[in-house]
Amino acid sequence: MKTAKPTQAALGGLLNRRSFLLSGLSLTSAISLPTFANSNTGTEKLADDLPIWMKTPGVNDIGYGLPVKYEEHIKRTLAATTPETSLFSIWHSPLQNQRGMITPSGLHFSVNHNGIPDIDPTKHQLIIHGLVDKPLKFDMESLMRYPIVSNIHFLECAGNTAPNAVSLTALDQNCQELFGQVSGSEWSGIPLKYLLKEAGIKPSAKWVIAEGADGGSHSRSIPLDKLLDDAIIALYQNGERIRPSQGYPMRLFVPGWEGNANVKWLHRLEVTDKPAFTKDESGLYSDILADGKIERFSFHMDVKSVITHPSGQQVLPDKKGFYEISGLAWSGYGKIKHVEVSADGGKTWAKAHLEQPALSKSLTRFTIPWQWNGHSSTLLSRATDEYGRIQPTRDVWRDKYASYSFNHYNAIQAWQISSDGRVENTYV
Amino acid sequence: MKTAKPTQAALGGLLNRRSFLLSGLSLTSAISLPTFANSNTGTEKLADDLPIWMKTPGVNDIGYGLPVKYEEHIKRTLAATTPETSLFSIWHSPLQNQRGMITPSGLHFSVNHNGIPDIDPTKHQLIIHGLVDKPLKFDMESLMRYPIVSNIHFLECAGNTAPNAVSLTALDQNCQELFGQVSGSEWSGIPLKYLLKEAGIKPSAKWVIAEGADGGSHSRSIPLDKLLDDAIIALYQNGERIRPSQGYPMRLFVPGWEGNANVKWLHRLEVTDKPAFTKDESGLYSDILADGKIERFSFHMDVKSVITHPSGQQVLPDKKGFYEISGLAWSGYGKIKHVEVSADGGKTWAKAHLEQPALSKSLTRFTIPWQWNGHSSTLLSRATDEYGRIQPTRDVWRDKYASYSFNHYNAIQAWQISSDGRVENTYV
Repeated sequence: MKTAKPTQAALGGLLNRRSFLLSGLSLTSAISLPTFANSNTGTEKLADDLPIWMKTPGVNDIGYGLPVKYEEHIKRTLAATTPETSLFSIWHSPLQNQRGMITPSGLHFSVNHNGIPDIDPTKHQLIIHGLVDKPLKFDMESLMRYPIVSNIHFLECAGNTAPNAVSLTALDQNCQELFGQVSGSEWSGIPLKYLLKEAGIKPSAKWVIAEGADGGSHSRSIPLDKLLDDAIIALYQNGERIRPSQGYPMRLFVPGWEGNANVKWLHRLEVTDKPAFTKDESGLYSDILADGKIERFSFHMDVKSVITHPSGQQVLPDKKGFYEISGLAWSGYGKIKHVEVSADGGKTWAKAHLEQPALSKSLTRFTIPWQWNGHSSTLLSRATDEYGRIQPTRDVWRDKYASYSFNHYNAIQAWQISSDGRVENTYV
Repeated sequence: MKTAKPTQAALGGLLNRRSFLLSGLSLTSAISLPTFANSNTGTEKLADDLPIWMKTPGVNDIGYGLPVKYEEHIKRTLAATTPETSLFSIWHSPLQNQRGMITPSGLHFSVNHNGIPDIDPTKHQLIIHGLVDKPLKFDMESLMRYPIVSNIHFLECAGNTAPNAVSLTALDQNCQELFGQVSGSEWSGIPLKYLLKEAGIKPSAKWVIAEGADGGSHSRSIPLDKLLDDAIIALYQNGERIRPSQGYPMRLFVPGWEGNANVKWLHRLEVTDKPAFTKDESGLYSDILADGKIERFSFHMDVKSVITHPSGQQVLPDKKGFYEISGLAWSGYGKIKHVEVSADGGKTWAKAHLEQPALSKSLTRFTIPWQWNGHSSTLLSRATDEYGRIQPTRDVWRDKYASYSFNHYNAIQAWQISSDGRVENTYV
């Protein structure tokens, strides 16, 4: 078998992926993994020290499976800003433990403005009214009759990565704390255009007020055009009915738009000619610009990326050697076109491999092989979407907004690797 | 807004999807849904009868989320052939409740030949030995350093739909009982070619014996070529570490090949020049042909499909009217090219819509609008893959195999709709 040394893709040890994949036997040295000569290639000796689980029968399965007990520590964590006693809660997803583009529903991030309501689906109704020819009311049974479409999309809270937006110095936090308000799922539901067309939209209609059936009636004004485009009444997430913290029995899903516009526990859509300026959109989810003006209705989540392996507070087990850099990129406007990675703090960049399919408004996994030389290094990732939108530096982002504004932060993230292998959040 | 009556795609009420989507206001009559005139289009009256969950605060979320209590009845069920007391167990996935192409990991089908072992990941090792230049042994920590790839694939047990293979009359079973041994997930793991190249394969090598660390050492012989192609050591399923019933801490994953070849709890790969004819491959998973000869190593799962909505034992709520026909198709050889649906027992066929992306060796969701006239009808689906492989009729399939052979059944499935709306498994 041919062996060849992988070629460099950028300084700091970033490798050309094709040459790396073709390097064959040289992987051993390239990877510097501990490999063990095994003197017993037969099965005889192996039988002597069989583990207990090979000598005893196993247990039976159960109706609804759960993660293994050895991985119980991998779970969502409450944001420091919303303690256990708060009705407003933010739960962060452990991105640093995820692979691929699907987040298990049990680990999907969750933001709840008024706690999670316990809604009896047999009593829940969806009402469409306002500037329509014929107001409509649906119970679950009649709604479930409509055509259902499925798409894989990310969902991100407007406030994701807020600490890096507002803290003057980079806080020593991990990927979950800094980026854990984004997740990816297959969402299935009814295209809203079917229901709106059936109700008959009056010519003066321009907006729709979407209201949730939670204790605080979380509500947002959504432009009608978006609802006639790719919005759905989401009924399923990752193949099963959506869970309470995702809006059971139904939520509005507006692909690529900030999380709170995807109104959970949806029970009312009022078609109007102007936005309602609800408490939720006038308060928490308006962005304050540097000159003090307020940016209203900043729905799109912009192009963004983060390296999840290695990431904040992890420690590289070997003090030098091979590591695969792996991360997630996404854009609320469309597909990710490419992600560049730097291992030298931004001096040189190499294009990462994008796992396929790289879908529109979906988490996209990127990877690049990295031969760490053991010296202090700074890893960056910079995503560009199909419309040429590219992540700004932190300074550029900060210059646009007031110092205390924290929504829609999408600057290039930097992880500092110390020579002892520890990874830490940093600003460049 | 323009309204137009949807045009027919085939007899029995199958509609042209494009004309259906464009039909706008006429959906109301086309769909015949109960729509309620709502005399209170303002919010005043609505406030009077707010449900309790809109007047009280909700509860907080938890670290690892679970399905809602109202959907607890949606769970895997044990096959009738493997009672609770059996070490050999088969758990069926509730396909009739799933949407999209992802099966939640908690509902993924599970076949366990010797129960589910409780494997301590800190003590588990993977050994590669036999016809290699350098035998290798990996613990979890060293293995997790390798590059990881992710792909969405189906997994199907060779024995899926066995009742329809062997029963002389069509049993009155539901979709879960008949088809519940297939599921779809995003699988993430290490391409096996990296590990085999590192070990150095000797020229005489042709096969690899894969052995699990369960109490019965389930083992299969796999052609080396497949392992150098798209096989992975799967470590993650749907974004989190695979669960015990899927092989924690690792399983072999050979895309498109029968479930039991995807050896769970993998701990040993022995590179050889010939297959081992292990108990598992010589017994349960050999297919007996009509002439009594045995078909060895029938790895590929062939092209197959099933309508999941409506399906066995469901009852259509309205005695006639609009229904969306929805189902799943898959092929162990590659992508699904098209799925045809018949509503008149196979006399006329219409092409269903395939949800995108339609991925290789993955569940592919198909849908077609259907205007049921309320008369007795027979629904069929027939999938064709990118290589032109097409599902056979039941008679053609039966003629190939011995009457008692039940693996690899992929004939066209038929559901009989009675005029009272009940759906029943049938043969055509």
